[in-house]
Amino acid sequence: MLDVYEAMRTLRAVRRLKPDPIPEDVLARVLEAATFAPTGGNAQPWRIVLVRAPETKAQLGELYAGTWTRFRTFYEQSIAGLPDDERARETRMLAAGDHLATHFHEAPVVAVFCFDPTRMAITDAKLERVSVVGGASIYPAVENLLLACRAEGLGCVLTTLLCGREPAVRTLLEIPDPWGTACAVPIGYPVGRGHGPLRRRAVAELVFDERFGSAHRTP
Amino acid sequence: MLDVYEAMRTLRAVRRLKPDPIPEDVLARVLEAATFAPTGGNAQPWRIVLVRAPETKAQLGELYAGTWTRFRTFYEQSIAGLPDDERARETRMLAAGDHLATHFHEAPVVAVFCFDPTRMAITDAKLERVSVVGGASIYPAVENLLLACRAEGLGCVLTTLLCGREPAVRTLLEIPDPWGTACAVPIGYPVGRGHGPLRRRAVAELVFDERFGSAHRTP
Repeated sequence: MLDVYEAMRTLRAVRRLKPDPIPEDVLARVLEAATFAPTGGNAQPWRIVLVRAPETKAQLGELYAGTWTRFRTFYEQSIAGLPDDERARETRMLAAGDHLATHFHEAPVVAVFCFDPTRMAITDAKLERVSVVGGASIYPAVENLLLACRAEGLGCVLTTLLCGREPAVRTLLEIPDPWGTACAVPIGYPVGRGHGPLRRRAVAELVFDERFGSAHRTP
Repeated sequence: MLDVYEAMRTLRAVRRLKPDPIPEDVLARVLEAATFAPTGGNAQPWRIVLVRAPETKAQLGELYAGTWTRFRTFYEQSIAGLPDDERARETRMLAAGDHLATHFHEAPVVAVFCFDPTRMAITDAKLERVSVVGGASIYPAVENLLLACRAEGLGCVLTTLLCGREPAVRTLLEIPDPWGTACAVPIGYPVGRGHGPLRRRAVAELVFDERFGSAHRTP
C-alpha cells in the first residue's frame, strides 16, 4: 500500500538497473496499471511490446546507444554556459544516461509502447505547430506504469530516443502498419537507492491564474 | 491516504460536475501533483492556465460546445453499427458528453495545459507519421493531476477538443508564441457517484511478448 501522492512525489528517473529478474506477479500488476489509464473515446490505442530476450534487448541497446551519443553531444553543449552547481547536476544526469546507454540490454524488461494513430482523434493535426494530442491517449498509460513500478520498488525511466530509430525498432519487434512507437521504458530493480525526492519547479512557476504569465497565488 | 493502485483503478472520466467551489488547499495539492511528473531533461515545458472567472469559462464553454457538436455527429455515425449493448453504452457516454458541453462553464475550475515545443527534444518529428513524442513531457503531468483529483474526491476529465480551436483559446488566455495547448481539464465535485470501476481491455489484449501480436502470457 503506497499513497498515491507519495508515489508521485518520489518517482524518479532511475537509469541504473540491476539485471535481476522481475517476478511475474509484480510485472502483472505493473502492466495492469497501464491499462487503467484514460484514452480518447476509451479506444486504448496503445500496446506494449515487452522485451526480455537477451538478443532483442542487445539490438535495442545498440540502437539506443547510437542515438544517445548524438543527443549527449547536443546536451553537453546546451549546458556549457550554466552556473557550476547546475552544470554539475546536469553532468551527473549525463553520467547516469551514459550508464543506461551502455547497460540498456541488462534491464530485465524493456516495455516498448506502440500506438495506432488511426484510432485517435488528433484534434491538433491541422495546426501549424507540432502535434502532441495523440500522446494524450498514450502517456497517461506510461505514467501509470511508472507509478506502479514505484509502488513495486522497481526502477524505470521514460525514454523517447529510440523513436528516432523507429524503422529499425519496428522491423526488430515486427510492428505492423500503421503502428508507431511512443517510448521505451527499461524496468528493473535499482542499483542504488532508486526513487526518492525530486527536483521540480514550484507550483507558482508552472501555474497561472486566468491568463498566461499571471503566477498562481494560493491565498 | 489512497493507495496508488486504487486511485488508478477507479479514475473515471467524470463529465457531470457540480459548480461548488474547490477549497484552495485541495486545489494546491492537485496542482502540486502535476509538478511531480517526469519530463524530458527535466525541462518541465508545460504550464497550466487555471480558469475560474465565469466570463472566461463561458467563452471556453462556447468554443467547446461548437467542437463537441461536430465531434458528436462523427462519433454517432461511428457507433451506428455496434451491437445493441455496446451502442447503448456509447450512447450513455455521448449523453454525458452533451452534459459537459452544455455545462462546461459550470465547472468551478478548468485547467488548460500549455506547452513549449522549443523546450522539447521531439525525437519523432522527422518521421512520416504524426508526431506524439512532445506529449511525453505533458500528459504524465496531466495524469498526475487527474489521479490527485481522484484522491481528493474531485471529478475531472481530460479533453482535447479545444485544441481544434487553439487560435481562439490562445487569444482568450493570452498565450504567447511559441506555446501551444495540449488539453483542458474541467474539475469539480461529481454530481453523481463520480469515480468507480472502469471498463478496460485485459492485459493480454494490450501487451505482447517479444514481438507485436504475440499476446502476453502470465505463467
